[in-house]
Amino acid sequence: MISSFFPPQRTLMGPGPSDVSPRVLGALARPTIGHLDPLFVQLMDEIKELLQFAFQTKNELTLPISAPGSAGMEACFVNLLSPGDKVIVCQNGVFGGRMKENVERCGATAIMVEDTWGEPVSIGKVVTAFDQHPDASILAFVHAETSTGVCSDAAALCALARGRGALSIVDTVTSLGGIEVLADDWGADAVYSGTQKCLSCVPGISPVTFSARAVDRINNRVHKVQSWFLDMQLIMGYWGGSSKRAYHHTAPVNDLYALHESLIMLQEEGLEATHQRHRRNHEGLVAGLEAMGLAMAVAPEFRLPQLNSVLIPEGVDDAALRTTLLQEFSLEIGAGLGALAGKTWRIGLMGFASNERNVVYCLNALEAVLDGQNAAINTGVALPAARAALKR
Amino acid sequence: MISSFFPPQRTLMGPGPSDVSPRVLGALARPTIGHLDPLFVQLMDEIKELLQFAFQTKNELTLPISAPGSAGMEACFVNLLSPGDKVIVCQNGVFGGRMKENVERCGATAIMVEDTWGEPVSIGKVVTAFDQHPDASILAFVHAETSTGVCSDAAALCALARGRGALSIVDTVTSLGGIEVLADDWGADAVYSGTQKCLSCVPGISPVTFSARAVDRINNRVHKVQSWFLDMQLIMGYWGGSSKRAYHHTAPVNDLYALHESLIMLQEEGLEATHQRHRRNHEGLVAGLEAMGLAMAVAPEFRLPQLNSVLIPEGVDDAALRTTLLQEFSLEIGAGLGALAGKTWRIGLMGFASNERNVVYCLNALEAVLDGQNAAINTGVALPAARAALKR
Repeated sequence: MISSFFPPQRTLMGPGPSDVSPRVLGALARPTIGHLDPLFVQLMDEIKELLQFAFQTKNELTLPISAPGSAGMEACFVNLLSPGDKVIVCQNGVFGGRMKENVERCGATAIMVEDTWGEPVSIGKVVTAFDQHPDASILAFVHAETSTGVCSDAAALCALARGRGALSIVDTVTSLGGIEVLADDWGADAVYSGTQKCLSCVPGISPVTFSARAVDRINNRVHKVQSWFLDMQLIMGYWGGSSKRAYHHTAPVNDLYALHESLIMLQEEGLEATHQRHRRNHEGLVAGLEAMGLAMAVAPEFRLPQLNSVLIPEGVDDAALRTTLLQEFSLEIGAGLGALAGKTWRIGLMGFASNERNVVYCLNALEAVLDGQNAAINTGVALPAARAALKR
Repeated sequence: MISSFFPPQRTLMGPGPSDVSPRVLGALARPTIGHLDPLFVQLMDEIKELLQFAFQTKNELTLPISAPGSAGMEACFVNLLSPGDKVIVCQNGVFGGRMKENVERCGATAIMVEDTWGEPVSIGKVVTAFDQHPDASILAFVHAETSTGVCSDAAALCALARGRGALSIVDTVTSLGGIEVLADDWGADAVYSGTQKCLSCVPGISPVTFSARAVDRINNRVHKVQSWFLDMQLIMGYWGGSSKRAYHHTAPVNDLYALHESLIMLQEEGLEATHQRHRRNHEGLVAGLEAMGLAMAVAPEFRLPQLNSVLIPEGVDDAALRTTLLQEFSLEIGAGLGALAGKTWRIGLMGFASNERNVVYCLNALEAVLDGQNAAINTGVALPAARAALKR
């Protein structure tokens, strides 16, 4: 017989999921009510409003997709693309590659703009791509690359798309709640995210927002959306006004309790204070890592405060180190992904997990384990450096 | 400012979600761990094994899709169909219509076999459909129609498909955990379900199982699966053996804690005892309803014990009655759907909610509200009749 599962209390400092606050876990476990219950419909309306705040948008079509971030990505592509379309896809990490897959599975063509992993999307290359493919109808890019820890210039890229008469699809899975996401100011057309990163909610839900221009394109489609589950016209009917709600699927009721609570926490702290906290803890971590003698993988001006890519020093056993951190410190940090596997660690400071305690705990643990592996690091200096930076 | 949401404690006797046991809610709220954590990988393996038990199958490809039942349905269709295929779709309620949508969005043709809502799928009509379309490569049908409360003969339909060289896709969203589901004995090829019905777990996850024949068809596809998120070859890679797991999406960690716990409860009670409990409580409810003078909408031999369709008596205000039940008794029962809207109620006795207390509570509440509307019912007789039936 299989018995009940009691997970340990981890400190989650990988690329996500991040630590979920007890307040959000408490909301998650409240009694399930029906998805057509008038009280639940009110909750849905509040979630829409809170997501508009998080995305900094007035877009009416702003709601959580009932599935993880990769389904949110797919929702953007299948609703805005039709067979034969040309899409400029920027790739500077894993997730641009996934966008390409999505484009091709819609029967459209992906024009790839490739940048080195660890660097941001080059605006100049995107300009060239539009020059060569003036009929491209969509520009897709990742704002905060989870695989590398790099931030690209979303404002410039969205403006470029608009200037060329194209719509923009923006991945903010790792940025939302950690750094500025300004859907309206950017003029972004379709933006998707995930709940398990800087929102510090449980994994499984994908907030999305679509501009009026994007909604126009959806409403004027000739081909039916290839996914029934992700068809935004049907989903709009389900999430629309209370009076005219049409059954589509059964919403993940409890996950939405949790999302609601995590968004209230964001609202309470305020966006600016939240972003400052992420910035400060990032600076503390980097000061400690660099004092120890470790090097960051990304140039300072492109670093994401919530996801810190660190170069693995020569001679260190990557897998053994992460296993020791997990087993002896119950601390999870992330491995490198794709081209960076074995070359970097990814240390997350996301949402609820972005706090001084975690900065200190992680530096302590890393120092102990690296020292145990006889790595050439400076000991005893990381904490003072981190604490000095945290006090600035 | 929007404030925290505290849902009331409902009694959920609609078509789902059903009441979730405190034990499952407790599991749901346990601390989130990483989706690549070795302990989580073990949990995934246990869930696969528990789902094999629930579906009564040895199919290796048995796992939960990280999205609601409608995504589970779509996963079956997009992985097994290719453009140009012919699919025989049985429709005797809402969900056959949704299957048709799925078939068409795959670029395939749906051959519809229609039966009256409230009646089971006619085997004879399916035989005729295969005679007329011997090249049909798939037969799709709903085992337990949630919109009508009718059970169809899954064993006969799967055998028929096999005899004609076609694969079968079976919707067991409302049946799994409530009545017998015998994936292997039936010879079913793709079976999907939901967590929020007789498994009494939170909504949002869709267990699926694929036969070896289905896996063969998936592995021999020429066209890529149109959905990246639901591509079973990628999902297999993620749910495969611990050693060779490939990142696909981030699993909904906490929802899977809950599913694991709900499946353990099913394992503890045993399938036969679970089905008997559903049967007994159904008989108690029906005895009470009929004593009151209400009539069931489905012939006895086709009734689902977990979903009881009741004809709304003449002159009763359907919406007002359900609102009063919800507001004064915190009791949810379901409205009729589609062709049966305004004509039936759907009273669920699913999973954890299938208990004597709920039978009695629902009969009491219905009697009080119907009497308050001056409906022509027999008062004071429902409970004795129900209790007698429950004791049998």
